[in-house]
Amino acid sequence: MAKVSVSIVGASGYTGGELLRLLLFHPQVEIKQVTSERFFGKPIHKVHPNLRKLSNLKFSSLSDLESCDLLFLCLPHGESMKKIDDYKKLAKKIIDLSADFRLHSPELYEKWYKKPHTNKALLNDFIYGIPELHREDMKKTDYVSSAGCNATATILGLYPLYKNNLVELDRTVVEVKVGSSEGGNKFSLASHHPERSGCVRSFSPTGHRHVAEMIQELSMGKDINIHFSATSIDMVRGVLATSHVFLKEPMEEKDIWKVYRDVYGNEPFIRIVKEREGNYRYPEPKLLSGTNFCDIGFEIDPHSNRLVVISAIDNLMKGAAGQAVQAMNLMHGFEETTALQFPGLNPV
Amino acid sequence: MAKVSVSIVGASGYTGGELLRLLLFHPQVEIKQVTSERFFGKPIHKVHPNLRKLSNLKFSSLSDLESCDLLFLCLPHGESMKKIDDYKKLAKKIIDLSADFRLHSPELYEKWYKKPHTNKALLNDFIYGIPELHREDMKKTDYVSSAGCNATATILGLYPLYKNNLVELDRTVVEVKVGSSEGGNKFSLASHHPERSGCVRSFSPTGHRHVAEMIQELSMGKDINIHFSATSIDMVRGVLATSHVFLKEPMEEKDIWKVYRDVYGNEPFIRIVKEREGNYRYPEPKLLSGTNFCDIGFEIDPHSNRLVVISAIDNLMKGAAGQAVQAMNLMHGFEETTALQFPGLNPV
Amino acid sequence: MAKVSVSIVGASGYTGGELLRLLLFHPQVEIKQVTSERFFGKPIHKVHPNLRKLSNLKFSSLSDLESCDLLFLCLPHGESMKKIDDYKKLAKKIIDLSADFRLHSPELYEKWYKKPHTNKALLNDFIYGIPELHREDMKKTDYVSSAGCNATATILGLYPLYKNNLVELDRTVVEVKVGSSEGGNKFSLASHHPERSGCVRSFSPTGHRHVAEMIQELSMGKDINIHFSATSIDMVRGVLATSHVFLKEPMEEKDIWKVYRDVYGNEPFIRIVKEREGNYRYPEPKLLSGTNFCDIGFEIDPHSNRLVVISAIDNLMKGAAGQAVQAMNLMHGFEETTALQFPGLNPV
Amino acid sequence: MAKVSVSIVGASGYTGGELLRLLLFHPQVEIKQVTSERFFGKPIHKVHPNLRKLSNLKFSSLSDLESCDLLFLCLPHGESMKKIDDYKKLAKKIIDLSADFRLHSPELYEKWYKKPHTNKALLNDFIYGIPELHREDMKKTDYVSSAGCNATATILGLYPLYKNNLVELDRTVVEVKVGSSEGGNKFSLASHHPERSGCVRSFSPTGHRHVAEMIQELSMGKDINIHFSATSIDMVRGVLATSHVFLKEPMEEKDIWKVYRDVYGNEPFIRIVKEREGNYRYPEPKLLSGTNFCDIGFEIDPHSNRLVVISAIDNLMKGAAGQAVQAMNLMHGFEETTALQFPGLNPV
Repeated sequence: MAKVSVSIVGASGYTGGELLRLLLFHPQVEIKQVTSERFFGKPIHKVHPNLRKLSNLKFSSLSDLESCDLLFLCLPHGESMKKIDDYKKLAKKIIDLSADFRLHSPELYEKWYKKPHTNKALLNDFIYGIPELHREDMKKTDYVSSAGCNATATILGLYPLYKNNLVELDRTVVEVKVGSSEGGNKFSLASHHPERSGCVRSFSPTGHRHVAEMIQELSMGKDINIHFSATSIDMVRGVLATSHVFLKEPMEEKDIWKVYRDVYGNEPFIRIVKEREGNYRYPEPKLLSGTNFCDIGFEIDPHSNRLVVISAIDNLMKGAAGQAVQAMNLMHGFEETTALQFPGLNPV
Repeated sequence: MAKVSVSIVGASGYTGGELLRLLLFHPQVEIKQVTSERFFGKPIHKVHPNLRKLSNLKFSSLSDLESCDLLFLCLPHGESMKKIDDYKKLAKKIIDLSADFRLHSPELYEKWYKKPHTNKALLNDFIYGIPELHREDMKKTDYVSSAGCNATATILGLYPLYKNNLVELDRTVVEVKVGSSEGGNKFSLASHHPERSGCVRSFSPTGHRHVAEMIQELSMGKDINIHFSATSIDMVRGVLATSHVFLKEPMEEKDIWKVYRDVYGNEPFIRIVKEREGNYRYPEPKLLSGTNFCDIGFEIDPHSNRLVVISAIDNLMKGAAGQAVQAMNLMHGFEETTALQFPGLNPV
Repeated sequence: MAKVSVSIVGASGYTGGELLRLLLFHPQVEIKQVTSERFFGKPIHKVHPNLRKLSNLKFSSLSDLESCDLLFLCLPHGESMKKIDDYKKLAKKIIDLSADFRLHSPELYEKWYKKPHTNKALLNDFIYGIPELHREDMKKTDYVSSAGCNATATILGLYPLYKNNLVELDRTVVEVKVGSSEGGNKFSLASHHPERSGCVRSFSPTGHRHVAEMIQELSMGKDINIHFSATSIDMVRGVLATSHVFLKEPMEEKDIWKVYRDVYGNEPFIRIVKEREGNYRYPEPKLLSGTNFCDIGFEIDPHSNRLVVISAIDNLMKGAAGQAVQAMNLMHGFEETTALQFPGLNPV
Repeated sequence: MAKVSVSIVGASGYTGGELLRLLLFHPQVEIKQVTSERFFGKPIHKVHPNLRKLSNLKFSSLSDLESCDLLFLCLPHGESMKKIDDYKKLAKKIIDLSADFRLHSPELYEKWYKKPHTNKALLNDFIYGIPELHREDMKKTDYVSSAGCNATATILGLYPLYKNNLVELDRTVVEVKVGSSEGGNKFSLASHHPERSGCVRSFSPTGHRHVAEMIQELSMGKDINIHFSATSIDMVRGVLATSHVFLKEPMEEKDIWKVYRDVYGNEPFIRIVKEREGNYRYPEPKLLSGTNFCDIGFEIDPHSNRLVVISAIDNLMKGAAGQAVQAMNLMHGFEETTALQFPGLNPV
């Protein structure tokens, strides 16, 4: 069978590098072109040193982009929406990894991004990129918008509870701990090693844009609030979301287990992690580096109606490139786990 | 003037080491004895290598403990309450750094420590060790019980809000990020470097004992709930508490500033940290390593009545040894900041 | 074709965990048993949390070990030599990952291990486990002894130079920087996170046992000296060996390139890394985490006849489990790279 | 007694920040001005957040620099030599922390800096800034040039051996492990946290400029070679130099002890660290963060005439600002340890 030809626009960033790492080992895919204006003409391993000896691909210029079956867009936020019509002419299918087409509501976009969306007509053409929530739609669509990494961790942790209407709608507090790769490979004083090393930095105590996605995906038609904060810690990859939700009715541990099992029981990339002993009783992002897993755990507060939900991902994988490849697999009818089977390392 | 003679019981741990580091430079104090059964007879620098060349002190056995003016007890939780009567005979003043005498209510102790207190009669003899809340009492007392590190960071962050009755009483969620020195120097598989390194470990999603102290100090006679979780990160020293409180009435930034300034305006070890730009807009524990500061910042959520309060300390200093020396200074009428003036390093 | 059945003795350690991670994805291998006395009866993911949801294997007791095609021995040093005869009865082929059968000379063993070898008769039955040096022998043997991690990094870096008799024999100085996983999963105060974190610890300035292997593999019948030191740094996985050799005759960069290319040009797991710009001009272990690569670079000192050779591996992979699987592939005539194709992550 | 008035030119960098931290607590010094063009008019804590609440100093422009008693120059390499005559008019005494006046020989400068020195006339007016080697000269001079951080660690480790003519002159190999603050606060892709984190980066295998200083200070009129390499590791502060020297004649441990004790026995900032047990048997930079100590240890290789010397400093302290304040104390006849007594933290 002919391989599907894919190209990556903006392939010199961390997400582009991860897509390359995955796609180079995908048996049903051929990478056609990868673009970077800055590294035009250079072999990809000059930018992604882990790919040394694995490929002879070189970066192309965007202006030389040819047609292909599927296009991954790894551009800075705001860029995809400007030229999406051009990309649609080049490829039947598009997976956009920016924030441009994640939200269906222009009002929600404007509220959280603090500027109007400039291509509202297309907002409903893109399927929101979390396969666990939109698998059937993905199988039929040509356009997927990958979800934000913090949003992915939070939504996957909370979805079964909101879907089953189990939690108070205005009380949820979510705290994510994130690594430095979330900021991409654009350096600054904030990312300068002596400054960033050892930090526990409240970079977004309120107002984080990913909240818009959480509200979109978790509200189920109701009016909800996610009280969200994000803190950077000394870690390169990984997101740990600690979500504090308040149960409408008392539930026991086995009830919560059942809720998660019912929704995620067959999911290849979701694991419920909750053990009575050992170091890894709850999800931990370091175990997920390089993998497409989302690990989810929980603990009921014996002193109140609080339920603490803990969810972890690799922001560059399940939070970006891995999620996108999973979507591609669904869009093309491939086995969903293809090229995504790296189990992660321990110790690490 | 004769120096005050102090001894440290249980001086081989991290808290004992910090007390030594501080007291060796305290001009009004003479260290008389430091006990350790395990290291009996050895010079202190064998256990605390940073003290090389600074002192000829050797560890004594507890059985050789002589009388002195003030005794610091750095014993494992549960040990002080067993033999407190003996210690009282040896020293007029006692500062206990364990959890044994932090709570005034035996019911509160039993609820959170899950066993009855065995020396209830003394619970009200100890002043809870946060000078910013109990300075005047400390000046008069002979007994102080140092506060828990996570409790210190949380209480100092929230006290002005609770004191002024500004927040909803059942909604506060607190998430602390803590370093590995919180666990002391007792090693285990959990603290084994390959396991502990890079971790983002939900070691106490619910049920943390320090909540009892928070309730005691913040309730102001009302019925309150602190929904608390603690996560270990790859850091040796430091606590960052991110507290999500919900305001009863809308407040503006300047109002919040005023609340904190009114309560902490003259405090030598509290700094309100809130800047519009730069890497250090909010408190960060790494800047506080070795210092006795508690830095506090806040951000009002523009989308709800949430106020996020961020407070940072060095758990071994403001959360233990530094706080204890500050208490000692008050108990003896010394200048409160004596031996506590190290400003912290940057970069670090 | 029937799969090869393999078992792992001592599978609860880090090396055993890595073998499991690799072998679970090896299409020609079936894992029959994995032993651990301590975790007997428990599923493997209780010890190796990265393997959650990947396997239903449980730990067996050594006393229940059945016959299989190939046995991996992951026992503490000194254990294999005691019971090797029993293991030989259970499996035709054996790969021992301890230090017991690495050296062919009992004198060399005694000099560096400071005790006599207790099973000298077998010392010459085992092929030393670096495939790049002993590939043809491995294809024919039933017994392989995996090389030490520091020895592997050093030997692979220096082998082409010694083989071609290019360096002064008594002047080579080698400094390795190593991670904490080298010490295995046995915890101690030395591995306690607050102690081990941030360390730059000269744990073996002289006398490191791996020097014996280096001398065995590099001497080429001559009398050589490797002046070796090892320093622990704050890293979990990885070895970087910086070797300072002194050239007998002046050589230019292209000459050195040629020497390495001649010896390693067709090696699937060796990459010469030497670039003029970028962050990754020379080998770096973090890029190799989880991979079986050995990256090698070099720089000629313009001020003397020194050549600095830099070689990096993942100590648990090319320095242990990966090397062992590579050997297994050769011993069974499988494609040499099977199950070893993970390319490593970036950023990481 | 009137305080000595000092100003710092180029005070917004890491070295300037450390000078400020020290000088703010120096009882005999008054800080008059600190210059920064970029942060002109801003309070110093905006750049040095650890100094919050400690000082009301603001940055001045260089063009407003007034006369003072002593000037610290913390400018990029190459800047001091351009305008040194202007600075000499403003202050009687100058301590230059750049590399401009470290070398007395213009030939040596040109060989290692690869360009001619542009102010050769002054090269012999500056005392090389290591007090342990040049204390008496410092007491009499008006001009000191602070030593390079890697040079300081190496020279202090090796000086007693070279002074006593104990080592082979062409065989010494030195490997330093350094932290990211060595590069200052100028950010780049190389210092971007996801890239720099976890690195073991051979940034200078050969050709490091600090070798020139080592040769100047250690040669004792002979022709020597220091075979030097530098590797960056994941650390912010600190240098560990591992020096491999080869003894001309066999020596025993007690002989080496004597050599070091004879030279450094009375030094306030040098400690010989060599213990039989414990985690800290040899020097380790993390214990020295914020201190002015140089810790030195050694181990004799039982298999050869190699002696391994291990020396550690904080690059920003003993390797820069601390050394400069020590020099200032000597130049002004102050107690040499004034403002330099912070003992360092443990654990850290």
